[in-house]
Amino acid sequence: MAGAFAVGRGTAHAGPDGAATAGDVRQAAYAFRGAHQAGIVTPAQDRLHFAAFDVLTDDREELVSLLQRWTLASEQMTAGEPAGDGAVGGDVRLPPDDTGEALDLPASGLTVTFGFGPSLFRDADGRDRFAIADRQPEALRDLPHFPGDVLDPARSGGDLCVQACADDPQVAVHAIRNLARIGFGTVAVRWSQLGFGRTSTTSTSQSTPRNLFGFKDGTANVKAEESAALDEHVWVGSGDDPRADWLAGGSYLVARRINMTIEVWDRQPLGDQEMFVGRTKGAGAPLSGGEEHTAPDFDMPGSNDQPVIPVDAHVRVVHPGQHGGVRMLRRGYNFVDGSDALGGLDAGLFFIAYVRDPATHFVPVQLAMSKSDALVEYLKFTGSALFAVPPGVGPGEHVGQALFT
Amino acid sequence: MAGAFAVGRGTAHAGPDGAATAGDVRQAAYAFRGAHQAGIVTPAQDRLHFAAFDVLTDDREELVSLLQRWTLASEQMTAGEPAGDGAVGGDVRLPPDDTGEALDLPASGLTVTFGFGPSLFRDADGRDRFAIADRQPEALRDLPHFPGDVLDPARSGGDLCVQACADDPQVAVHAIRNLARIGFGTVAVRWSQLGFGRTSTTSTSQSTPRNLFGFKDGTANVKAEESAALDEHVWVGSGDDPRADWLAGGSYLVARRINMTIEVWDRQPLGDQEMFVGRTKGAGAPLSGGEEHTAPDFDMPGSNDQPVIPVDAHVRVVHPGQHGGVRMLRRGYNFVDGSDALGGLDAGLFFIAYVRDPATHFVPVQLAMSKSDALVEYLKFTGSALFAVPPGVGPGEHVGQALFT
Repeated sequence: MAGAFAVGRGTAHAGPDGAATAGDVRQAAYAFRGAHQAGIVTPAQDRLHFAAFDVLTDDREELVSLLQRWTLASEQMTAGEPAGDGAVGGDVRLPPDDTGEALDLPASGLTVTFGFGPSLFRDADGRDRFAIADRQPEALRDLPHFPGDVLDPARSGGDLCVQACADDPQVAVHAIRNLARIGFGTVAVRWSQLGFGRTSTTSTSQSTPRNLFGFKDGTANVKAEESAALDEHVWVGSGDDPRADWLAGGSYLVARRINMTIEVWDRQPLGDQEMFVGRTKGAGAPLSGGEEHTAPDFDMPGSNDQPVIPVDAHVRVVHPGQHGGVRMLRRGYNFVDGSDALGGLDAGLFFIAYVRDPATHFVPVQLAMSKSDALVEYLKFTGSALFAVPPGVGPGEHVGQALFT
Repeated sequence: MAGAFAVGRGTAHAGPDGAATAGDVRQAAYAFRGAHQAGIVTPAQDRLHFAAFDVLTDDREELVSLLQRWTLASEQMTAGEPAGDGAVGGDVRLPPDDTGEALDLPASGLTVTFGFGPSLFRDADGRDRFAIADRQPEALRDLPHFPGDVLDPARSGGDLCVQACADDPQVAVHAIRNLARIGFGTVAVRWSQLGFGRTSTTSTSQSTPRNLFGFKDGTANVKAEESAALDEHVWVGSGDDPRADWLAGGSYLVARRINMTIEVWDRQPLGDQEMFVGRTKGAGAPLSGGEEHTAPDFDMPGSNDQPVIPVDAHVRVVHPGQHGGVRMLRRGYNFVDGSDALGGLDAGLFFIAYVRDPATHFVPVQLAMSKSDALVEYLKFTGSALFAVPPGVGPGEHVGQALFT
């Protein structure tokens, strides 16, 4: 992938897939422009700041101008440079272009990934504010209500989204903050979410992290190296949706804020926890044996005429084999947002998945989970959003340009 | 400081003051036991999870038992080991002792620091639940109301506090979560706060980080290497308070959740921002000249018969020279807790300072800030708490043991 990698202030070097390799991961820098947006197959960085925005203007040109300015600033920040003309050294009579808190920090593997929500195409009053309603993808509809959803409207939806991932949280926060600053008057932050620890691997070079249930998560994820699987399950194909040719090479981003009732979970016996998940807690191996990456044997008999991997085990309920082989590229993060009114931690998983079509690749899996998954007793879905993620940004272009031309 | 350093799963080595030095900072491990609690002069780690607890029991023995169990678990976790008998490998019919999400992670420089709030000694109803009211330090009183305080009671106070700092946020979160789990039924989390980026240096070996105003913060902090200054300004002396001899070698922890109105700040001209702070934004040098660590010259004349460092500049208002020479050991963290109702970021500084006496070392400085500091227009104080931090834990002891014997 020639040109997919840019050296910022750091000293990293690019591998064949654009991945950075360096002694200090914070030195990594990823190119903003390319065939696909960065931040999807990019090896999952450690930290997340995700923001959904409401667009305040009805003016199409103002929206396009914002996308142009966001593109420029993102290209600068992902290279480890300040946004605009910088935080210092300019005219002291003017506000600085950059807010400054990342001045001394390297690029830290920052990626900035943009998406468009259903309400951008047709708002709550049915208005086609930006003359794009006839190009709304068929699959870009509000997700259905799932059993177990207790969604907070203030943590759901949004006209636009920005996913900033980095190996230093100050760098991710800096990116979102500066994009919000650049958008002042045109957009307002609807909600934002910090994630402190990645819960998925998106590259075979990464080890599998743990979620707040204490289990390895994302073992069977689609990986950057699986190019055929990416084409089949993640990237929107050029013939997928005649209304939305602009989305070819893009993807859909499903975001779900999943609170875990971790205090209740922590009082469950180890054996029960492993039965709920269908894997061992230590190694993450399927209960049918082997090691982490061994395929689960769902037919292996256990005791009492039950299979050794229970019928309601998470690994079985969401397994591609139960859903016609569909797979997702998951990119979620653990979060803790202080404590709740009952003296527990407001904590869980901010689930992010990239899929080619949410109707086939996400909704059926979520429905099966809601109905049959033993884990659901320990989960509360408190936020939800769906975005169409346009393809990568070519030279001289702005993000989402094909939608507006 | 012999014995002040323990090698956990990592490969770090101890410097003369117990500080770890290693290629990968996450390999660092600090001993839990010592003359002072770790997490005060320890080189400030990158991430914070701070929790305040309410004690639910009236039973002194149950409280002491909790402190014993917290001591044991903290000693294990700071060495990079799971709490108790671990997360896996035990009796599958029982809940695991450790929640597991840090299983594969090194100690990451974890420190766990405990404090006792005024309400532990005498609760809101005036009850002396634990027969310790006659040992309450004179200086351990609720802080006065300061102009500009808009405190949320749900983010203020607490009978106990635990400050967990680490270079990996998952390790800090794991520590608080497991202490909460161990305390289930005896204590409940009253509030908790994550901080993603340190804003102070506590060692001359560290570079100065930036706060969310984009300025370097903590330049003039008391450092670990200044042992005379620590004795004068941070550690409670053995004769300081005859009622509270148990606190000698300890300190007071002031916690203040300070929201910054960063969207308003970001619209201020660079020159104004520098006048408010009294330092340059780039290098952090005083406006009177020099570089970051040059002493400010408050008498240097500027234009219009005003000093070059304005009379309401933050650096002047809080300078030790204005307050009889008192200094604090600051250990604050940047935070972002999503967004507020107005589409701005709920962001700012979680201020933590360790002082020998809050009445002399904190209250006058905060009062001066409230009255005269140009920065206050961009701050909202939304949480506040004060804790007495007992001295370090000796061999065979539990934290705070001298208070209960």
